[in-house]
Amino acid sequence: MQTKLNVEGMACAHCENAVKTAILAISGVTEVVVDLAGKTVTVTHDENVTVSMIQSEIEEQGYDVV
Amino acid sequence: MQTKLNVEGMACAHCENAVKTAILAISGVTEVVVDLAGKTVTVTHDENVTVSMIQSEIEEQGYDVV
Repeated sequence: MQTKLNVEGMACAHCENAVKTAILAISGVTEVVVDLAGKTVTVTHDENVTVSMIQSEIEEQGYDVV
Repeated sequence: MQTKLNVEGMACAHCENAVKTAILAISGVTEVVVDLAGKTVTVTHDENVTVSMIQSEIEEQGYDVV
């Protein structure tokens, strides 16, 4: 399954990597695609991963889920 | 002495840190101040540090000295 979130504040490749690495650390996540220009993060994951788990990781890196 | 350079492409705090860390690794550099909004990097250093040494480090991190 996939969760797609709108995320504000990701500015560059470093931001992209920070978000990717944090979300990939969640058990059950298999893929993270960040679209900097489109300001989206698309996460492929199993049924044990919740939106709030993903949101927490993004916010912990300093970005806002809108 | 100080060297102030105009640098394009630094977008966020990660960029700032990447540039700072790279320049601070040059022997003889004592301080690096990055102004993201003003697009400048100001380096305090001794007489053995050249502009081209600083420029190389910035470009190696993927930013342009203009």
